[in-house]
Amino acid sequence: MKAAVFHGPDVGMKVEDIPTPTISDDQILVKVAACGACHTDLHYLEHGVPTFKKPPIVLGHEASGIVSEIGSNVTNVQVGQRVLIPAVLTCGKCQFCRMGRENICSAMMMLGNHFDGAYAEYVAVPSKDVLDLPESIPLEEASVIADALSTPYHAVKNRAQVRPGDTVVVFGCGGVGINAVQLATAAGGKVIAVDLSERKLEWAKEFGAAETVNASQVDRVSKEIKKLTGGGADIAIEVIGNPRTIEEAFESVRIGGRLCVVGYTHEAISIVAGKIMFKELEVVGSLGCRPVDYIPLIRMVEQGRIDVKRMVTHRFSLDDIDKAFEVMKQGTSLRSIIVP
Amino acid sequence: MKAAVFHGPDVGMKVEDIPTPTISDDQILVKVAACGACHTDLHYLEHGVPTFKKPPIVLGHEASGIVSEIGSNVTNVQVGQRVLIPAVLTCGKCQFCRMGRENICSAMMMLGNHFDGAYAEYVAVPSKDVLDLPESIPLEEASVIADALSTPYHAVKNRAQVRPGDTVVVFGCGGVGINAVQLATAAGGKVIAVDLSERKLEWAKEFGAAETVNASQVDRVSKEIKKLTGGGADIAIEVIGNPRTIEEAFESVRIGGRLCVVGYTHEAISIVAGKIMFKELEVVGSLGCRPVDYIPLIRMVEQGRIDVKRMVTHRFSLDDIDKAFEVMKQGTSLRSIIVP
Amino acid sequence: MKAAVFHGPDVGMKVEDIPTPTISDDQILVKVAACGACHTDLHYLEHGVPTFKKPPIVLGHEASGIVSEIGSNVTNVQVGQRVLIPAVLTCGKCQFCRMGRENICSAMMMLGNHFDGAYAEYVAVPSKDVLDLPESIPLEEASVIADALSTPYHAVKNRAQVRPGDTVVVFGCGGVGINAVQLATAAGGKVIAVDLSERKLEWAKEFGAAETVNASQVDRVSKEIKKLTGGGADIAIEVIGNPRTIEEAFESVRIGGRLCVVGYTHEAISIVAGKIMFKELEVVGSLGCRPVDYIPLIRMVEQGRIDVKRMVTHRFSLDDIDKAFEVMKQGTSLRSIIVP
Amino acid sequence: MKAAVFHGPDVGMKVEDIPTPTISDDQILVKVAACGACHTDLHYLEHGVPTFKKPPIVLGHEASGIVSEIGSNVTNVQVGQRVLIPAVLTCGKCQFCRMGRENICSAMMMLGNHFDGAYAEYVAVPSKDVLDLPESIPLEEASVIADALSTPYHAVKNRAQVRPGDTVVVFGCGGVGINAVQLATAAGGKVIAVDLSERKLEWAKEFGAAETVNASQVDRVSKEIKKLTGGGADIAIEVIGNPRTIEEAFESVRIGGRLCVVGYTHEAISIVAGKIMFKELEVVGSLGCRPVDYIPLIRMVEQGRIDVKRMVTHRFSLDDIDKAFEVMKQGTSLRSIIVP
Repeated sequence: MKAAVFHGPDVGMKVEDIPTPTISDDQILVKVAACGACHTDLHYLEHGVPTFKKPPIVLGHEASGIVSEIGSNVTNVQVGQRVLIPAVLTCGKCQFCRMGRENICSAMMMLGNHFDGAYAEYVAVPSKDVLDLPESIPLEEASVIADALSTPYHAVKNRAQVRPGDTVVVFGCGGVGINAVQLATAAGGKVIAVDLSERKLEWAKEFGAAETVNASQVDRVSKEIKKLTGGGADIAIEVIGNPRTIEEAFESVRIGGRLCVVGYTHEAISIVAGKIMFKELEVVGSLGCRPVDYIPLIRMVEQGRIDVKRMVTHRFSLDDIDKAFEVMKQGTSLRSIIVP
Repeated sequence: MKAAVFHGPDVGMKVEDIPTPTISDDQILVKVAACGACHTDLHYLEHGVPTFKKPPIVLGHEASGIVSEIGSNVTNVQVGQRVLIPAVLTCGKCQFCRMGRENICSAMMMLGNHFDGAYAEYVAVPSKDVLDLPESIPLEEASVIADALSTPYHAVKNRAQVRPGDTVVVFGCGGVGINAVQLATAAGGKVIAVDLSERKLEWAKEFGAAETVNASQVDRVSKEIKKLTGGGADIAIEVIGNPRTIEEAFESVRIGGRLCVVGYTHEAISIVAGKIMFKELEVVGSLGCRPVDYIPLIRMVEQGRIDVKRMVTHRFSLDDIDKAFEVMKQGTSLRSIIVP
Repeated sequence: MKAAVFHGPDVGMKVEDIPTPTISDDQILVKVAACGACHTDLHYLEHGVPTFKKPPIVLGHEASGIVSEIGSNVTNVQVGQRVLIPAVLTCGKCQFCRMGRENICSAMMMLGNHFDGAYAEYVAVPSKDVLDLPESIPLEEASVIADALSTPYHAVKNRAQVRPGDTVVVFGCGGVGINAVQLATAAGGKVIAVDLSERKLEWAKEFGAAETVNASQVDRVSKEIKKLTGGGADIAIEVIGNPRTIEEAFESVRIGGRLCVVGYTHEAISIVAGKIMFKELEVVGSLGCRPVDYIPLIRMVEQGRIDVKRMVTHRFSLDDIDKAFEVMKQGTSLRSIIVP
Repeated sequence: MKAAVFHGPDVGMKVEDIPTPTISDDQILVKVAACGACHTDLHYLEHGVPTFKKPPIVLGHEASGIVSEIGSNVTNVQVGQRVLIPAVLTCGKCQFCRMGRENICSAMMMLGNHFDGAYAEYVAVPSKDVLDLPESIPLEEASVIADALSTPYHAVKNRAQVRPGDTVVVFGCGGVGINAVQLATAAGGKVIAVDLSERKLEWAKEFGAAETVNASQVDRVSKEIKKLTGGGADIAIEVIGNPRTIEEAFESVRIGGRLCVVGYTHEAISIVAGKIMFKELEVVGSLGCRPVDYIPLIRMVEQGRIDVKRMVTHRFSLDDIDKAFEVMKQGTSLRSIIVP
């Protein structure tokens, strides 16, 4: 089969012919319909993959497709079924899985990271976690549910806990951020979107933001948020993973408010501890999404509450996969999908 | 001033000229812009007012208006300000108020029940609880926020705790029910509306219901809900106060689901206790709304997330107040407001 | 091996020699140290087992022991290890398991109900759910953790949600009830224990109850509870499964309080729906306990916060198993364990 | 009356004769039985009082006493009644008060900070917030409830949310810390106490700690905690307000765990943001205690679940007040009370 194989940051990614994967008894083979291009992939391309499967590796963790083969133990899906593959697959046995926090599974496996991903014609995955996609959701665009939508869904619902009428400021309006805007709005929140790019802020408005702040045009974003909300937002969500932005998000919430950190950075932030205490703030992290939460999320997409079609601004063939990362770097795309 | 004075179920309500109320140091006088007609008023008209102020009494607890006079201690509002008056006013001192549950205040005072209400040109109320109404919200229609919207807002947000993607079945699509539909939808829920009237089910669809069930056309509503949801709704909300409907709502939720009782009845329900235990159900009551929750609710109306204009299907002068209760009994109105 | 085999209510239970069970790849064989006698077993003995494995069946679901053999796929336990077997084993795959509610697993399997239990020298169980028992906990007495302690632990912690300083009334002071008393006390609650038996109320005091009410000596228990608590308990827990007692428990909670139903009955209860609404009550069910919650529970036993030794008032050999149910019927035991 | 008047850090505190305070209509005059000496007072003595009432001011915010006079509007207490005065008094009107978070009231008034405190024979306070003290609680020792107990009660119950079986590490075993140990234990937690002083660690054990770690004798405390708990504590509570200790506490919690910051510092902490996200941590602040939460707390003291007698290690007259701060600086006291 054809696949985009990553050989490490020095050599890069090359489209090659490799053997179609074989499956074990608990796995299925999925003919990939589309796989979204994510900033995480870009990070891998530039810095290497941090975990188990060393290059050569097929990247791509945001995929939808059609089941083409099932292992001998598989009963939950059938050949020919339209499915979504969660970006992160869980063990189901550790204490975190069993206390209802599969998204922090201590043995989690990420597609296109711990094992070969979906920038390919076929991908082999455990059957346990895949989800049925109703006919009414377009198969290719559905791929973006698997990360660009699921990650902010978990953040908005379970961690930031947006409730109807809350004021919510979202820092960063890329693929994940715009969906944080979309989902916080769908949860009844009044969203203020923050970014440096006017294009992205326009998108934020299209996806439901009530207000926007261009961080390049104000002295301090937190000051502007306090003005717009009369003292600070109920909730701030940071999806960039920039230490300075996280600190600014921390300053943007009201007394008794909540900051939800979705963006990853290995760097330190510096925050005044007394503010956590004296203003009784909450700072919570959010990582990925439990497979079980994909069910209501897919329902929202099916019902038309969440838009996946407008999310997909670009489409590329496997041969043109490099272009997906070019438009990502230029900041002119919301989400590109690779259609093998 | 002109007012509709209720003299008890035997004599009924008469439009009369009575003295404009005088205010104490902590009160304000509000020139009523509009006051909604509620089923509770109809119940009072037919069965008498159950509490402190004996007839003659001015009914009406869902009012907006303009401040025309303020007491000597009042600092939170000004003469000329557009205000909403919460239906229920709280003591602020009992343990329930202080633990954040003002809506079950042990000394609560209801407008048009414990003291004279707003079917009148003027009404005197404590200043503590009134809320500012932004210019962008039409003053007359805003009146329905004070009960028809605030009651289901509290129910949906704090008691039923609807979260994005939840399936929610709402039993009863009158003034409060239709707003339960509207608010549960605004909170990201997928709503199934249940009623006996096709007209009301059409309204439910206009206000966001994804599906409707006409209870007169199915064998058992709960069976239908289980079919539509694949095993039962995440959440059921009953707003009628009919024992049989509450029982049916109880049967409509899935394993681990939640029933929220908003409708009042003094009658008993009969439910199989073992189902509560074996299916780990939750049955929670919901009463009114805390004044502090009006702030995000008004924000939702201001932002256009909640529609008050379409809610007001009829408008009557004080002289025609009887007609408001006639259309209510006919079931052809969503909400009538009385404009003095 | 020797086992007490149940042949249905007509024939009853007989101690016989049956083949030692064989295990599959994912199972382990446990040499039973002790198995508690539970009211559920008594119910089965008198009315038959309601589910999958038809008699002949070995009953007994509250067991500890030593691993004597492990299947080829088993890695989480070793031969010779001291283990506790949860009363209910879960599938780990259904949506309830995956949302963190394994205790309402839609494919749950109960030991001594869906398959042969532990009134025997050996029992075969899936390895996934068994728990390590620290050396400091006596092996035989540890058996009672598996139901008599785990059921009220889940109820007190996750469903009734007892917090330090809460007033908690516990209806029923048998094996499960006395542990509801013990655990609600350990959670910081002030417990009022209710029963008809003075002996059981004495035990309740020994296990931490601050007050006791003998239901046979007061006009109405709920009235007495209201007197003792100044208006009603924060939380009521019913562990008997008697419709009248559940109704009385419902009447015993304060405005805004919570009733947790732990006892099972297939009969209906009759409660005034308006009280749920007007007093904003919560009625929640509680079923069993998630395997993952056994970990902190065993920690509490290990730390000496929960007493299992005093719980075991009687000990019988397999040959004398009938005597365990005799003392249970006489109400003179807290928990009897069967030591094969 | 006699009072210890603080004239600013330069002049210090002097015992003087000043006029007995007069009360307004909503206030009461309390004859002080005892007032605890708190680190906050020491901070004021050394650095000045940061807020409204400029010196000369009477410090002391942890007081019990007997009502000697009541204002004309006061109905909730009577002359001669034994009362506890909360350290912080609330407005009851701001949105924080009304959403059930009086402890972050936007107009809070602290005794001995915004107005004259209780290092005096008499103190005048608003009647609204004072609490009845049952006869069974010794009046003088009861004073320490007002801060040394109430602050960790709120932290343990509402913010850290300790539940039975949780592992809890408490950093700092002074007056507030030792009660965090005591209360987390009373909530069913297994507590590991951390301090530099062996004397304080001994006290921690007496008050319920299951384990102790002397921070001066280990390489890194967080490493030790991870060893003791098998991966990190469920919950960490920091009561010192030292940036380095807060950072260490942050490192001590398990994946998915919670850090509760009770100690105040105006300095910044530096934490790796990616850990918040990737380990899905929660960092929450805790400030003071709502007056309404004093009710269950006093109940716990009355029931003997919480020990106030052993808390009071020293007693001084007003004339000897300086000695209270000397033993505090030496670290040889748990709590000193000033008995006028």
